[in-house]
Amino acid sequence: MPIVTFITDFGMKDPYVAMVKGVILKINPAISCIDVTNQLPLGDIESASFILNETYRHFPAGSTHLVVVDPTVGSKRRAIFSTKNGHFFVGPDNGVLTPVLSKVFEIKKELGKQSNTFDGRDLFATVAAKLASGEKKEKLGKKINDPIKIKFPSPILLDNKTIGEIIYIDKFGNLISNIKKNQILEGDIEIEIKGIKVHLAKRYSEGSENKPIALINDGFKSLEISLNKGNAASFLNSQIGEKITLRRKDE
Amino acid sequence: MPIVTFITDFGMKDPYVAMVKGVILKINPAISCIDVTNQLPLGDIESASFILNETYRHFPAGSTHLVVVDPTVGSKRRAIFSTKNGHFFVGPDNGVLTPVLSKVFEIKKELGKQSNTFDGRDLFATVAAKLASGEKKEKLGKKINDPIKIKFPSPILLDNKTIGEIIYIDKFGNLISNIKKNQILEGDIEIEIKGIKVHLAKRYSEGSENKPIALINDGFKSLEISLNKGNAASFLNSQIGEKITLRRKDE
Amino acid sequence: MPIVTFITDFGMKDPYVAMVKGVILKINPAISCIDVTNQLPLGDIESASFILNETYRHFPAGSTHLVVVDPTVGSKRRAIFSTKNGHFFVGPDNGVLTPVLSKVFEIKKELGKQSNTFDGRDLFATVAAKLASGEKKEKLGKKINDPIKIKFPSPILLDNKTIGEIIYIDKFGNLISNIKKNQILEGDIEIEIKGIKVHLAKRYSEGSENKPIALINDGFKSLEISLNKGNAASFLNSQIGEKITLRRKDE
Repeated sequence: MPIVTFITDFGMKDPYVAMVKGVILKINPAISCIDVTNQLPLGDIESASFILNETYRHFPAGSTHLVVVDPTVGSKRRAIFSTKNGHFFVGPDNGVLTPVLSKVFEIKKELGKQSNTFDGRDLFATVAAKLASGEKKEKLGKKINDPIKIKFPSPILLDNKTIGEIIYIDKFGNLISNIKKNQILEGDIEIEIKGIKVHLAKRYSEGSENKPIALINDGFKSLEISLNKGNAASFLNSQIGEKITLRRKDE
Repeated sequence: MPIVTFITDFGMKDPYVAMVKGVILKINPAISCIDVTNQLPLGDIESASFILNETYRHFPAGSTHLVVVDPTVGSKRRAIFSTKNGHFFVGPDNGVLTPVLSKVFEIKKELGKQSNTFDGRDLFATVAAKLASGEKKEKLGKKINDPIKIKFPSPILLDNKTIGEIIYIDKFGNLISNIKKNQILEGDIEIEIKGIKVHLAKRYSEGSENKPIALINDGFKSLEISLNKGNAASFLNSQIGEKITLRRKDE
Repeated sequence: MPIVTFITDFGMKDPYVAMVKGVILKINPAISCIDVTNQLPLGDIESASFILNETYRHFPAGSTHLVVVDPTVGSKRRAIFSTKNGHFFVGPDNGVLTPVLSKVFEIKKELGKQSNTFDGRDLFATVAAKLASGEKKEKLGKKINDPIKIKFPSPILLDNKTIGEIIYIDKFGNLISNIKKNQILEGDIEIEIKGIKVHLAKRYSEGSENKPIALINDGFKSLEISLNKGNAASFLNSQIGEKITLRRKDE
C-alpha cells in the first residue's frame, strides 16, 4: 500500500487538494492519501518545512511526501524531488524541502508542462504518484546539486544560557520553540519569555489557567510554552519570532 | 481492509493527527484511517463520548476506534482499550469510552512508554494498529473491572411530561437533546424550550426562518430543535444544558 | 480499489460525514473515501454543482461521486443517480447533479427507506457503495428522463465584448468567473471589475499587493481575479454574481 502525504496551503474548503488526489489515484488507485496539513498560512514556506521535518519520519520508509507551498508558481523556479532516509519528497525549489535535501533531482520537463497557477496538480501529483509506485528516480528527474535552501533560526547555545525563539504556534496556542529536548541546559534552570519567568514542568496539569509553563512537546521534541486549559499565545500576546531564554539558576 | 477511526480534539491545522496515522501505517500500511472528528472542543470528554456512541455502530464490526480527548495526559491515569459488539476502542481511562466499556483492558506498560504530552501517538496508535491487525487482546492488555465512567444526563420521564436537555450542538446550530426517538410521549404533545412552544415536525421544510421546530435528527435518533434555513442555537441563544420539556396536550 | 468522493455541506466538526463513510465501508471495506469538500455553504446547490463538474474528471473512470447538498431532504423530491463518461453520481434530484445528468436513474424505494433528515447516510451511501462495487445500475434504479436541472449563468459573448460574472470564491479570495479559458477574446483586451481595470497576467507574481490582476485559474480553467499576496474578494468587496467585462482595446 503506497502512501502519499500532503502538506499544502490549499485549505479544505476548495476542491484543489481533491483534484491533486484524483490525479494521483488515476495513476495508481492503490495509493493511500494522507493529509498532514492543508491549512498552512498562505505561502508560509518556513512552517511547511518545519512540519515536514517533524512529521515524515513517523511514516513508513518508502512514503512520498508532497509539499506544495508555492508562492512563486508560474515563475522559472524549478520543480524538484528529493530522497532521504528511504522517503521521497516532491515540491517546488523554493526552500520548502530544505530539511530533506539529500539526493535532489530536477523534475524532467517532459513529465508535464508546468502550469501558471497549479503545479500541485499538473506536475507534482504525477511525480509523487510515480515515485510512490516505484518508478525509477532517474526516469523522473536529473540530479542537481544546487537546490535552494532556507535558513532556520538556530538557538544560541552558551555555557550558562540558551536563547531560542518561537518557530511555530499550534491550534492550542502552544508556543513551540526551536530549542530541542537535548539542547536544554542541565541542572536547575529558569526560563523567561516576555519578561515572565516560567517553570519547566513535566506535564500540562502542573500549570494553572493564568500561569504559563514550559515543557517538552512530545510531538515535536521541542521546548514549548503552554497554558493549562488556556491559550499561551493569546495570554502572552506572543508571535513567531518571540525570544525565549534559559538560564542556569545557580550562576 | 482493517479500519481505524479518529475522535480527537487535535484539530486539523497541526500535524498531530497525521503523526498518529503515520505510526499506525508503519505498523500496518493496509489500514484505512477515517476521521470521525478531530475538531472537538479541547478536553470535551462528554461530546467525544456522545459522538463515539452514535458513530461506531455505522462502521463494520472489527473496526478500531481511537478516542483521544485526554486533558490529564502525563498524569497517572491509565491507558485502556475495550471491546463491545465486535468493535475495539482505545483511549485514556478518563470516562471518554464510557458507553463502550464492556470488556476493558489496561494497556501493558511494555507496549510503549507513556508520554508526558502525546500518548495519542506514542502509545494509543500502536495499540490501535495492533488491535486492527488482529493481535490478541491478551497480548496487549490486562483485564480490569474498574474503568472510570462519566454520568450522562438522562431525561426525566414522567407519565405526562418528559424533561430533557441539550447535549450537543452541531455545526448547523441544531440543538440535539438527550431525548431518544423512542422516549417521545405518544399522542398530541407540545414541546417547549426557553419559554417558546415548538411544533414536532416531520422535516426541516415545515419550519420557517423565525420559527424553530422540533424533529427527529436521523443522524443521532434524538429529538432536536432546528431552524429551517437558520441556526437554532443562535436564534434561541441556547447552549449545552438547556432544558427542553415535552407535555401531553390533552392533560 | 473503488473510489467514492464526497461533496457535501455537512462540515467536518460533526460525525455526519463519518457516519456516511461507515455505511459505505460496511458494504465494501476496500472503498477509498476521498473528501472533495464538506465545507460548502449550507444548501448551496450551485457551488456544489460547479465543484462537481470541475473535479470529477480528475478521478479515474469508474469513480462514484456522492453529492449531498439537500435542503429539501424529507420532502418528496426524488433520490437519483446518473452516469457520464464512465463515472457515477449520486444525490438528490434538486439540480445539484445538473452538469452530469446524462443517463439518469431514480433510486428504487426498496433500497432503503428515505429518511426525514439524513438521506446522505440512510440511502445515498448504500447506493454509492453498491455502484462503486460494480452492482448493475438497473438493479439500483429505474431510468427517468425528467431530472431537475438548474440554470448556470452563462457569459454574454459579443464580438468585441464579453460580460461574465463571478460564480465561486475560493479560500484565497480569488474570484472565479464563468468565463472559460477558450472564451477569452483574442488580441489586446482590457478587463474591468467594479470599475477597476485589471491586466490579464500569466502568473500571480505579476500582480502587486494593491493591484488585482486577471489570470487563468488552472484549477478551474476559468478567468479569475486575484490579488498577489492578498485577498481579491475583500480588496474589491466583491461577491458571487459580481459582473466582469472584457473588451477589445483596439475598438
